[in-house]
Amino acid sequence: MATARIRLHLDHPLGAGQPLPLTADQAHYLFGVMRLAPGDALLVFNGRQGEWRATVTAAGKRGGELTPEVQTAPQMDPPDLWLMFAPIKKARTDFIVEKAAELGAARILPVQTDYTNAERIRQDRLQAHALEAAEQCGGTYVPEVADLMPLARLLDGWDDARRILWADESRLGPAQTLAGLPPGPWAVLIGPEGGFSPAERARLGAAPYVTPVSLGPRILRADTAACAALTLWQTALGDWK
Amino acid sequence: MATARIRLHLDHPLGAGQPLPLTADQAHYLFGVMRLAPGDALLVFNGRQGEWRATVTAAGKRGGELTPEVQTAPQMDPPDLWLMFAPIKKARTDFIVEKAAELGAARILPVQTDYTNAERIRQDRLQAHALEAAEQCGGTYVPEVADLMPLARLLDGWDDARRILWADESRLGPAQTLAGLPPGPWAVLIGPEGGFSPAERARLGAAPYVTPVSLGPRILRADTAACAALTLWQTALGDWK
Repeated sequence: MATARIRLHLDHPLGAGQPLPLTADQAHYLFGVMRLAPGDALLVFNGRQGEWRATVTAAGKRGGELTPEVQTAPQMDPPDLWLMFAPIKKARTDFIVEKAAELGAARILPVQTDYTNAERIRQDRLQAHALEAAEQCGGTYVPEVADLMPLARLLDGWDDARRILWADESRLGPAQTLAGLPPGPWAVLIGPEGGFSPAERARLGAAPYVTPVSLGPRILRADTAACAALTLWQTALGDWK
Repeated sequence: MATARIRLHLDHPLGAGQPLPLTADQAHYLFGVMRLAPGDALLVFNGRQGEWRATVTAAGKRGGELTPEVQTAPQMDPPDLWLMFAPIKKARTDFIVEKAAELGAARILPVQTDYTNAERIRQDRLQAHALEAAEQCGGTYVPEVADLMPLARLLDGWDDARRILWADESRLGPAQTLAGLPPGPWAVLIGPEGGFSPAERARLGAAPYVTPVSLGPRILRADTAACAALTLWQTALGDWK
């Protein structure tokens, strides 16, 4: 019998003894690629009801059925932290989404800035990356990836109760900045390779809900900056405490 | 005239007015790919003497010459921080080396652990990645990438004056762990996908110079863990202060 190391996200309610129908893609993955057979066990989650141990109760070429037996982990939602970033080259954008899911962002918002080249993103592909990262990292939550939106429009409708940690130059070191952050909903904002435009800098610098944070003396790529800023926030205010 | 946004690492002493001969590869990059011509400016560094503004004084198909004019940044060595990690899939190993250079590791040591699959690495390729990351991030230092070495052998000859921050489970949150770290030489140690073997865990757990650090409730991939641990160390003890 296979061990329960496979983790699968399913968009279906989970309950002991309640059969889960599989899509053709899921059946192909479990039975064609991973070679599971009836009686084998795996872990499943749906992003809302924790993680369950399930058994294969039917296996076919185009479908099949799993039956959850027992909950193996409770639902664990990440803190109310968003990641906003300007999409860059494909591989690095994929990477940012993967890292944001692993590091525990609740929502991922690709934003179009004045110096962003990307006109559109493949939201479905990025969402699939977030889901795969959740399967991989043992999480029970899949962050939503929003569609590309202009930063200016996002800020026009911004709820001031959500503060923004803005990866930028700052007189203070990150430890000092982080020590002073109030709890509550937050978003981390990472700029594109060319930085922010003067207009964007003026607007962000003047907003009372924005806190700039320095990320050291070297210039970090956007993907590195996203990892660093999420790590610092989680350590100061999030679920790494 | 081209702007001075191109940064090139050269293995040659730098001084005002002292001509720098270019290799065929460098000439191809500057004149063939980047289309520089005599009179154009760029930035150069050699990892020891800071960053200089230089001018193209000869351009050919198989060589050329640059002449440094003025130093634009002093030499900035990173803190005495090593990164030790178990090599994983090619793209992710490349990524770890790039991130370590950006985040300011002084030395990068790929280690073979009991659960590491890699038998060998392409040290030259990884070193080139570190160099490219230094060119990109505005640093004046290129971390050395060591050749693959068994972790056990590395620990056999370990100098106890260098402490190890071991990415592992820990009762304490990372903020508490970091608050108690003494300054001095350090190494961050990241495990392979399957974690460390019981023998390795026993040895590391018993070593007085090893401090375990937790990186949150989700299981991070090795590349994410490397970014997170380097960020936390730099913020607590390094040059992000």
